[in-house]
Amino acid sequence: MKLFLSSGEVITASPQFSLLKNLKNNGIHIIAPCGGEGQGVCGRCKVIVKKGKYRTRLLDKLSKKERSEGYVVSCQTHLKGDLYIEIPRSSLLETEGVIAGEISKNLNKIFNFSTIDISPLTNEIYLELPEPSLADNISDLERVKRGLSEIGQRNINVPYRLMRDLSRNLRYGNWKVTVTLIDTGYTQEVLRISPGKRDHKNGKYGLAIDVGTTTVVIYLVNLTDGKFVDVATTYNYQIIYGEDVISRIVYATDQGGLKELNEAIINDINSILEPLKKKYALSEESIESIVISGNTAMTHLFLGLDPAPILKEPYIPTASIFPITSAGRLGINASPDAPLYTLPCVASYVGGDVVAGVLATKIHKKQEISAFIDIGTNGELVVGNSEWLLAVACSAGPCFEGGGLAHGMRATAGAIDSVKINLDTLEPEITTIGQGSPEGICGSGIIDAIAEMYLKGVITSNGKLRADASSTHIKTAAEGLEFVLYGEKDNEITITEPDIDNILRAKAAIYAGFAVLLTETGLSFNEISKIYIAGGFGRYLNVEKAIAIGMFPDQPKNKFMYLENTSILGAYLCLISSKLREEAEAISSMMTYVELSNSDKFMDEYIAGLFLPHTNLSLFPTVKNMLDPNIQRGKSI
Amino acid sequence: MKLFLSSGEVITASPQFSLLKNLKNNGIHIIAPCGGEGQGVCGRCKVIVKKGKYRTRLLDKLSKKERSEGYVVSCQTHLKGDLYIEIPRSSLLETEGVIAGEISKNLNKIFNFSTIDISPLTNEIYLELPEPSLADNISDLERVKRGLSEIGQRNINVPYRLMRDLSRNLRYGNWKVTVTLIDTGYTQEVLRISPGKRDHKNGKYGLAIDVGTTTVVIYLVNLTDGKFVDVATTYNYQIIYGEDVISRIVYATDQGGLKELNEAIINDINSILEPLKKKYALSEESIESIVISGNTAMTHLFLGLDPAPILKEPYIPTASIFPITSAGRLGINASPDAPLYTLPCVASYVGGDVVAGVLATKIHKKQEISAFIDIGTNGELVVGNSEWLLAVACSAGPCFEGGGLAHGMRATAGAIDSVKINLDTLEPEITTIGQGSPEGICGSGIIDAIAEMYLKGVITSNGKLRADASSTHIKTAAEGLEFVLYGEKDNEITITEPDIDNILRAKAAIYAGFAVLLTETGLSFNEISKIYIAGGFGRYLNVEKAIAIGMFPDQPKNKFMYLENTSILGAYLCLISSKLREEAEAISSMMTYVELSNSDKFMDEYIAGLFLPHTNLSLFPTVKNMLDPNIQRGKSI
Repeated sequence: MKLFLSSGEVITASPQFSLLKNLKNNGIHIIAPCGGEGQGVCGRCKVIVKKGKYRTRLLDKLSKKERSEGYVVSCQTHLKGDLYIEIPRSSLLETEGVIAGEISKNLNKIFNFSTIDISPLTNEIYLELPEPSLADNISDLERVKRGLSEIGQRNINVPYRLMRDLSRNLRYGNWKVTVTLIDTGYTQEVLRISPGKRDHKNGKYGLAIDVGTTTVVIYLVNLTDGKFVDVATTYNYQIIYGEDVISRIVYATDQGGLKELNEAIINDINSILEPLKKKYALSEESIESIVISGNTAMTHLFLGLDPAPILKEPYIPTASIFPITSAGRLGINASPDAPLYTLPCVASYVGGDVVAGVLATKIHKKQEISAFIDIGTNGELVVGNSEWLLAVACSAGPCFEGGGLAHGMRATAGAIDSVKINLDTLEPEITTIGQGSPEGICGSGIIDAIAEMYLKGVITSNGKLRADASSTHIKTAAEGLEFVLYGEKDNEITITEPDIDNILRAKAAIYAGFAVLLTETGLSFNEISKIYIAGGFGRYLNVEKAIAIGMFPDQPKNKFMYLENTSILGAYLCLISSKLREEAEAISSMMTYVELSNSDKFMDEYIAGLFLPHTNLSLFPTVKNMLDPNIQRGKSI
Repeated sequence: MKLFLSSGEVITASPQFSLLKNLKNNGIHIIAPCGGEGQGVCGRCKVIVKKGKYRTRLLDKLSKKERSEGYVVSCQTHLKGDLYIEIPRSSLLETEGVIAGEISKNLNKIFNFSTIDISPLTNEIYLELPEPSLADNISDLERVKRGLSEIGQRNINVPYRLMRDLSRNLRYGNWKVTVTLIDTGYTQEVLRISPGKRDHKNGKYGLAIDVGTTTVVIYLVNLTDGKFVDVATTYNYQIIYGEDVISRIVYATDQGGLKELNEAIINDINSILEPLKKKYALSEESIESIVISGNTAMTHLFLGLDPAPILKEPYIPTASIFPITSAGRLGINASPDAPLYTLPCVASYVGGDVVAGVLATKIHKKQEISAFIDIGTNGELVVGNSEWLLAVACSAGPCFEGGGLAHGMRATAGAIDSVKINLDTLEPEITTIGQGSPEGICGSGIIDAIAEMYLKGVITSNGKLRADASSTHIKTAAEGLEFVLYGEKDNEITITEPDIDNILRAKAAIYAGFAVLLTETGLSFNEISKIYIAGGFGRYLNVEKAIAIGMFPDQPKNKFMYLENTSILGAYLCLISSKLREEAEAISSMMTYVELSNSDKFMDEYIAGLFLPHTNLSLFPTVKNMLDPNIQRGKSI
């Protein structure tokens, strides 16, 4: 049977598999956060059937309007004959080009590439050894070691596994060999002894991998010149075992759970690696090094380490600096002996992704004091300079990623990302990511909306909608009052009071963490010269609005700088430079983690932050000035 | 069906298998150098059938007398019903007790055990770590490293494979762990992290293994006190692929040959390890370290390294100092992660067995100059002291092990080991090993015999039997003259002229090697204070007779000292002491190998040595004095 796509593509499809699977088998990746395989948990993998016979389930995941337009949940739909479908843009995985383009731009902005010495995890040395003779009859191994020693390479350790082929490789290469070394700190471990000069006809590549809680990103990097080649990205399939880190750790402590989670992430990586390899005609062997970066829990799940103690006080990870392992040992489809380096972590809730962020922003190299903020489900904050680094982690919950909101969604096409409210009519004016028709609201969108609602008097400083505000947009629904951002009856996108409460708690936690870091160091926000914001959430964030709701301190806008995915950036840097790997480890060692879970100071700050923008309005002079004096902003109505 | 042994034992036997296999299956090991499985190459695995029905082959391997007495080749014989058999002593593998006893005696003679610090390959450290808290929340790995660092252990390398269980092991042991370390030269590699204090209830053992060309010997050693526990020995099954090192290397270069040879030796070790483990109720895990010693070729075959270049000029081994590997990797049935250390070699024909010999004799620690001679198929000679060591290797051929002689056999029960000839009657008077009836002549026996024949005028100085000597013992056979040592028509043990030629070539090679070593150093034999003789061959050797034929220099008898199997002794020492492992490596590095294959000096000495005792009789004044002036000793008759 055939599947005709509105793009013109025609696919041979099997009725045995779901539409999702048929599309995936043909290289078309639909967003399916729940994994999709017969689960139908999330209902996100929508496609529109234009013509043809099919059977489907889970229509309740669709709105009336969607149903009338032919929307189906693709993982729950099987064709019964030829089918004509359209894939809405919002269902397609973010195209590679977008991320690649943004990052390349940022890479060149932040780093002076000419100053980075390209020194991957492995060091290849070409040796032309003298042929043995009766007068020079040392053993093959000693000959190789002598050759290395003559060019200054000492502490050479050749493992037994290379011994079996050593004699053949030396003779086959006519005493010319390429020795691949890896510096393990104490020794130079020989990884490979190849006959002749390795020509790398098929290139020599490395992978930088960001193992995020939600998404997995791979950079394919040319290790010869250190240049970024391409990017591939997918959702972390572990999501079917739990949306957040905590529920996955709980799942991992079950019998066999760790193995499942580990396999899920390895499969994710392999599944997006395959198309990359195909595209550039890369052999498995040409991928010679891997660096991964992730938060501590994701790092543990990726390496197959028990994450259970991360969850329980006193929150101890198995390691913070991890031994180098290999692609083969972890099941990644690269050269089996390709070394795999893991970005060092700091503590259970300050991971390699944060170390990567500091590395990428160079906070640890500057005299001036900077801050680094990475906001996802967890918010991690770092303050410091070249002499000291202090970090905290605070739980923000999933709301900044669209989770737990009545009409929340991730920051993909169709998400409302900015809201303006007319002071007189209280009419909202929205924009969406990709300029298409709105499908929900993302984290940055709701911050924008709440800031506007507060500044325009729609909500009070304690986050309640003003029933007395004369607006048709304020409605009473089953769970209380809500504000309609878009749409008509039965197909509305609204912000509810529980949504506002969620955001208030999340922003209060971030601000409180930041405040504690400053209290610990005796600094004020004014003494911080730069505030770097990382994470996908930050891309569409309006900093002024984040200040307006009291999430960020009231500092000049030009102090803030948005940096995309600094986790993959750090992984990339560690992939191409030994000096930067050393720096990453130095960052991990010098960073002091401040545990907030039992901190009274944090609790006081948190409670003070549960208002808009803050209980103490004098901390937010700019916001105070923005408030219209004509609007009554009592704590209660 | 039943097999009744004259010892009283009764075995349930299957007609499907040969007698040899039936006996082996019941733990009775018959000498079968050719491996026996249907090959019947050597005809050595004789048993005597007393009563019962059987079918057999290869009767031509037996003498008339043997056939009349019911002898059969056991690997070629199958029972057809209940069978009564007797196993001649000469067919049984040497009993363990003999070797164990001799060695223990020598051990105590040579070494002052109280001065040896017992430091096996692995070092176990028991740590009681502080339980983590919010105030002390470093990772598990850092906690272990800190604990080790606090007691002075640095450069710790924990491999990735230990990471997956680290968190569980620490918590299961309630923060008390035993860390097993192995010093790899540059780092302290962590081999194991076990919860709690390892109690070694079942003991902690190591194996010292001598991988000889002909025999394999295992010492079971208690690693707690360093004491020798027991010994097991077997023939090296590789013998079915070739009696000597050279034919095995040739076989190994064939497709798959190396694998077969490697498996043969590993199987040998496992097969004699099993009964030892049973006897002492040892678990696989309780065997925690292994040290092997062997000549360079055997070491290569054992480790699975390509031995081909050993055979071709310029004779290069893969390595001389070998990386540590593990029991599991090589397939030895000990603890899979038990480290396996290999005695370092010097060159292709001076192996770890020689280094072991120097280590055991302490030549490298003395100011006076000593010599070390290990004679088997190859003769290896070392001269030196604490400042220098010089070594040569010279091919002696198999004759000293009974090979290539008309009635040669190994030095086991029934072998003629000494011969006296009556000056008047020329009647020989013989003794045998084990005092049983003579079955052949071993290497030391034929040296004795030739010395006597020469001193008593039976042969001339160029090794020809004197047809004019009035003795009924000198006979003309198909291949020339021969001297009858024992027996009657059709069942005689004789020494033929080709036998004498063989011995002449072999002894000339040994003496020439020795002479070249001295020429190289500018020393005379008189300046050597001690000459150590190692190897099974030496056990029954009469040194005066060896001097009489010109194999050893004419030096006082008390300079010579016989030392049994110094290869296993060296392996044993390296098993129990890290200091001695370091010394072994120092010996390997300081020893200079003098290649004889293209040496004119060696060739001159060799040719001069093809006489009894030597072309230059003045080099052997003692021998000259022993000659009866009444006997004519012309170069030709």
